[in-house]
Amino acid sequence: MAEAPIRLGMVGGGGDAFIGGVHRIAARLDGHYALVAGALSATPVKARASAETLGLPRSYDSYVEMARAEADRDDGIEAVAIVTPNHVHADAAIAFLERGIHVICDKPLTSTMVDAERLAQVARSSDALFMLTHNYTGYPMIRQAREMIAAGDLGNLRLVNVEYVQDWMTGLAEGKQAEWRVDPARSGAGGSIGDIGTHAYNLACFVSGLRLDRLAADLDAFGAGRTLDDNAHVMLRWQGGAKGMLWCSQVAPGNENALRLRVYGDKGGLDWAQEEPNKLWFTPFGEPKRLLTRNGAGATTGNTAMSRVPGGHPEGYLEAFANLYTEAAHAIHAHRRGETVPGDLLFPTLQDGMEGMRFIEACVRSSSRDSAWVSP
Amino acid sequence: MAEAPIRLGMVGGGGDAFIGGVHRIAARLDGHYALVAGALSATPVKARASAETLGLPRSYDSYVEMARAEADRDDGIEAVAIVTPNHVHADAAIAFLERGIHVICDKPLTSTMVDAERLAQVARSSDALFMLTHNYTGYPMIRQAREMIAAGDLGNLRLVNVEYVQDWMTGLAEGKQAEWRVDPARSGAGGSIGDIGTHAYNLACFVSGLRLDRLAADLDAFGAGRTLDDNAHVMLRWQGGAKGMLWCSQVAPGNENALRLRVYGDKGGLDWAQEEPNKLWFTPFGEPKRLLTRNGAGATTGNTAMSRVPGGHPEGYLEAFANLYTEAAHAIHAHRRGETVPGDLLFPTLQDGMEGMRFIEACVRSSSRDSAWVSP
Amino acid sequence: MAEAPIRLGMVGGGGDAFIGGVHRIAARLDGHYALVAGALSATPVKARASAETLGLPRSYDSYVEMARAEADRDDGIEAVAIVTPNHVHADAAIAFLERGIHVICDKPLTSTMVDAERLAQVARSSDALFMLTHNYTGYPMIRQAREMIAAGDLGNLRLVNVEYVQDWMTGLAEGKQAEWRVDPARSGAGGSIGDIGTHAYNLACFVSGLRLDRLAADLDAFGAGRTLDDNAHVMLRWQGGAKGMLWCSQVAPGNENALRLRVYGDKGGLDWAQEEPNKLWFTPFGEPKRLLTRNGAGATTGNTAMSRVPGGHPEGYLEAFANLYTEAAHAIHAHRRGETVPGDLLFPTLQDGMEGMRFIEACVRSSSRDSAWVSP
Amino acid sequence: MAEAPIRLGMVGGGGDAFIGGVHRIAARLDGHYALVAGALSATPVKARASAETLGLPRSYDSYVEMARAEADRDDGIEAVAIVTPNHVHADAAIAFLERGIHVICDKPLTSTMVDAERLAQVARSSDALFMLTHNYTGYPMIRQAREMIAAGDLGNLRLVNVEYVQDWMTGLAEGKQAEWRVDPARSGAGGSIGDIGTHAYNLACFVSGLRLDRLAADLDAFGAGRTLDDNAHVMLRWQGGAKGMLWCSQVAPGNENALRLRVYGDKGGLDWAQEEPNKLWFTPFGEPKRLLTRNGAGATTGNTAMSRVPGGHPEGYLEAFANLYTEAAHAIHAHRRGETVPGDLLFPTLQDGMEGMRFIEACVRSSSRDSAWVSP
Repeated sequence: MAEAPIRLGMVGGGGDAFIGGVHRIAARLDGHYALVAGALSATPVKARASAETLGLPRSYDSYVEMARAEADRDDGIEAVAIVTPNHVHADAAIAFLERGIHVICDKPLTSTMVDAERLAQVARSSDALFMLTHNYTGYPMIRQAREMIAAGDLGNLRLVNVEYVQDWMTGLAEGKQAEWRVDPARSGAGGSIGDIGTHAYNLACFVSGLRLDRLAADLDAFGAGRTLDDNAHVMLRWQGGAKGMLWCSQVAPGNENALRLRVYGDKGGLDWAQEEPNKLWFTPFGEPKRLLTRNGAGATTGNTAMSRVPGGHPEGYLEAFANLYTEAAHAIHAHRRGETVPGDLLFPTLQDGMEGMRFIEACVRSSSRDSAWVSP
Repeated sequence: MAEAPIRLGMVGGGGDAFIGGVHRIAARLDGHYALVAGALSATPVKARASAETLGLPRSYDSYVEMARAEADRDDGIEAVAIVTPNHVHADAAIAFLERGIHVICDKPLTSTMVDAERLAQVARSSDALFMLTHNYTGYPMIRQAREMIAAGDLGNLRLVNVEYVQDWMTGLAEGKQAEWRVDPARSGAGGSIGDIGTHAYNLACFVSGLRLDRLAADLDAFGAGRTLDDNAHVMLRWQGGAKGMLWCSQVAPGNENALRLRVYGDKGGLDWAQEEPNKLWFTPFGEPKRLLTRNGAGATTGNTAMSRVPGGHPEGYLEAFANLYTEAAHAIHAHRRGETVPGDLLFPTLQDGMEGMRFIEACVRSSSRDSAWVSP
Repeated sequence: MAEAPIRLGMVGGGGDAFIGGVHRIAARLDGHYALVAGALSATPVKARASAETLGLPRSYDSYVEMARAEADRDDGIEAVAIVTPNHVHADAAIAFLERGIHVICDKPLTSTMVDAERLAQVARSSDALFMLTHNYTGYPMIRQAREMIAAGDLGNLRLVNVEYVQDWMTGLAEGKQAEWRVDPARSGAGGSIGDIGTHAYNLACFVSGLRLDRLAADLDAFGAGRTLDDNAHVMLRWQGGAKGMLWCSQVAPGNENALRLRVYGDKGGLDWAQEEPNKLWFTPFGEPKRLLTRNGAGATTGNTAMSRVPGGHPEGYLEAFANLYTEAAHAIHAHRRGETVPGDLLFPTLQDGMEGMRFIEACVRSSSRDSAWVSP
Repeated sequence: MAEAPIRLGMVGGGGDAFIGGVHRIAARLDGHYALVAGALSATPVKARASAETLGLPRSYDSYVEMARAEADRDDGIEAVAIVTPNHVHADAAIAFLERGIHVICDKPLTSTMVDAERLAQVARSSDALFMLTHNYTGYPMIRQAREMIAAGDLGNLRLVNVEYVQDWMTGLAEGKQAEWRVDPARSGAGGSIGDIGTHAYNLACFVSGLRLDRLAADLDAFGAGRTLDDNAHVMLRWQGGAKGMLWCSQVAPGNENALRLRVYGDKGGLDWAQEEPNKLWFTPFGEPKRLLTRNGAGATTGNTAMSRVPGGHPEGYLEAFANLYTEAAHAIHAHRRGETVPGDLLFPTLQDGMEGMRFIEACVRSSSRDSAWVSP
């Protein structure tokens, strides 16, 4: 028996905003949501125009108004996607959480630790769910990697190295995407480290199951007139003795969205690259390298569960994003029925968001102290 | 201003049928369709159960009943997706076309040339649109390849080689997918050549802009007890003097869905592989090889138009499939408004389906005549 | 105890001839040969200049003179490398074989079947050894592929597909390399099929252990004014029921030296590409793909035996070529000692050369008969 | 006119020592050297047996004896290759340099800074040449990378990242190769950082033309009972403002010899991996990625000069090594003639060796001070 679609609202994402479109596709892909309301822009006229283009039944001039009005309707939204610049996340999320509306929020959690703490307090006392879209955790091969490590296929972990490399800010980056990302007031204290470094960090933690002990960071702003970092080199010391490095950059020409994770233990290694997400190298020590595939031979439960089509029919970024939306839908369905949220749902939560914020803060702190080792 | 979603029905695709699910996702992904009715299985009880699972408003026991009933409703379906085994395509499509309902049909067109001709006659006299889901033509890099060739970037074409290699029938293939594909009564005279060879052939024609003059084929059934081919080697002579080869196989271990197209002219070459669909090699003679990417540097109009997200964020099989659904939606929207269908829509049509049928027939004919050169 | 180096002569290979230099490096690499005499060019003045540049102790104006003089010396050459255009191979080889001097001859064997038969007759009655440098058989991963197939790792073979693709004749190819290759009088009846198609065919036979039953070929000369083929598509029927294709081309822009062999059985597959020769894909059906490496985990005896350095330290074309020279040296050493040539030496022989000639002839014959199936 | 071969001796490299065999092949490959004497092992009986196996005319029980005896001969060695464990380098090199015999020494320079200074002093006052075999600088694509950066193709450099990853010490590494490398008395203060980190550092400097300002290192010994590092993460600050990272490891399963260099400027990037050495990615910002090849389209002078065979015919590790030997031969030839050594010879020298020693020392120092930034 099919569940009725979850009534979804959206804050931000008007016009040609990249990530708003992604969230809408992700919500639509598996058929679990119906987008019925939006406050798509801080500029009311733009919000309305975008809502009309998208055929949204209800458009609001602000998220405050939207939260209030939707909470009052019998058929009001059950969940809201927050896809604004970072500095709006906290207040917007709070407005909905306080009214019992589930929140699906883009990363990083907020632009400041103070905001993060405020949000966390509200979230903890709210019955509503909070999902953070660290979307790369939704890839099937990432689920397999996590499962293999948990099962001991790599032995004791020694190294967790991750890099996330782009090139779009090599020159004078312009346009909607770039504008707020280089503004500390809207983006927060981290530039590339907040925008993509947090993704890399989250992925490393998600897959390895490790927690970070300390880090030493060297942040740079290479772009002319830029105050926020566009490149970061970070050395990592994981709890339990493993080591690692994190490199994120937005000024490395030739790299579109090159997120890559490598994990090595005393029994084997794993190597995954986001631009070829349907593959995962598994390298048991002393044996031939094996190329595992999405929904292919040797697929684990999580790999298969996150897949829609057979191996060789590439799934990509949008499907991984949709996987999180679908996991959130299962949680919301359970919530509707008054049931406990199933324990096998792995979508990122407020906890991940808080850890990401601490990571950004620690990187900035270490870098300002000449790369001293600091705890996040 | 958003167009109201197109009311869509589906014939076939019940239970865990692979391709039915693909069509549903493709229809949903860009938000242009609402699936409202189905005759999802030839077995009524299964049809009903599947409809309930999917939350379909209206379920029918047969496509005949569905065509009749939906045509009578004011809010009846405007289009239908036909995703049954091949031998049902013709009658089902005819039932809807005769009632002015647009048809989106899986490939190959039908199981016999007689059926194909019958369908073609109806389709030509119907006002309704007919789209055949040769889905690989929906990939952004395939659009770029076509545009580059049309623009003369490769010079005069000399070679068009294509291969489509799988391994799932290496052993005794079982299950729903395999069952009807090895049965000539339901699949038609072609095995692998009909199932995947037609895709390869269609893609080669679509990208190169060439038409086939003659072919010489050697078909085989390696699987024990199999009557239909599971491997085919075909030599190609294109009109105008270019040559080529087509190889399709379902018994080559290690190949999941390895469709690859290579085109060479006297000025340069192109090389594309479906399993890494976001890349396209362009090799101008005497210059360094260039790796073009989806929505990346050097993207042509068609590449960008078929893309949703920036380069480096992989789009895949489902997005390519959805691109055809979206092009069909644009055509249906124009039809709604009484306008001419825009000329830049490139979704495959009945014409492509007829050419595919002639290709299958010619391969079987040539193979039975010891690989004599025959015209399709 | 080290063997004294084999005294080697060379016929052809003067000036900047590509293949002459390759043979000299191959002879030198493992230290088994000392190049002491040469008739490096048909033009005496050029022969002398080249010999002086190379520091050769003895230079001759013709191979006839050289054969005679060296045979008379106590310290005369024990072996000769013949690296001339094809039409000289037979007479030159005969001159040395008749005097008991071992011959290392470049491929193809000769330019005509008549010459081949003449040579074969002499070779059979000579005590001297004859090696044909089908150099690709010297790659370690090729040895592993052969051993795996012989051991049954792929099960019963169904498909042996091979392609050898270059681009250097895309335009008007010029220079020493091109000149004689497009001249039937010097090259023979085959163009690309003789130059590289024979390599591909030899490799397919060497690795698979199969013998060809019949072939159907379609040869073309795309280059303006060219009489010999620069592209060939060939369908293959192997004895025992396996099928295959061979494609060779010298007009496919973007391909430098793209020799690739794929073999599939009912239990698994192998895939090897010459441009990344240190890797071999092994794909057991239903299991994850495995990437085998030169001298790496899972290396077979032949892989290790043909390797000089550990995995990850790439060996290439020259090392593979040198492997044949070294195998020939082991045979010559045995001959010196009056022993039987060890049975585990796999360097190509006259027999391979004859099969290559029959293959070329069969391709030309089939193509002239509109691609009829013919026996080689 | 051919130069007479350079009479070469060897210290170390007896038995199955990996690097001794490599030096011998490298010396032989281009025909510029004749190996005529050796002190192949510190164990006389082993030295003699190895010399006999190799067919060396003269064998010595110690390098001291050899240096003395050869210097006294009219036909004594002109150059010596030193391929012993690190702690022997200094004394051996000094013994030959003091007698005017050219030295070709494996890296790192020595095992201690004190030894390095001693050696440097002798080398500076000797007329003989000193080459250090940082062999990766001999790759053709590395020469092209260096030339492109010098020509400004990347603009102002911002990032130089290098990694050198192996797996052979993942477990309890055993055998001749491992034994002395884990012993500080013979290897020096650096483990992986000395063995492979210096290669990576040298390559980064060679290609980028940058000099290091400061580094912050975190060294680890993961292997049980190991005192020397088997993994190192290092952050780099280059003079002039560029940043970078260096990661070397010998405990990362699945990595055979994975040296990779990435350099990014404000106009473009370069990416090279040693295991596929015939390729170099050049990524001009905002343009399609280009794959440059050895001796292929777009090859620079240095690429072509270091190549023996056309593109597509892979050259590898041994050819790159031989390129250094050949450059040294050109220098020694000039020396013979009393001429100045040509300025375009780029083989690594004592200066590179000293920088490598300072790098190792700085890494160890930084790591012992909790990764403080230090100057090398």
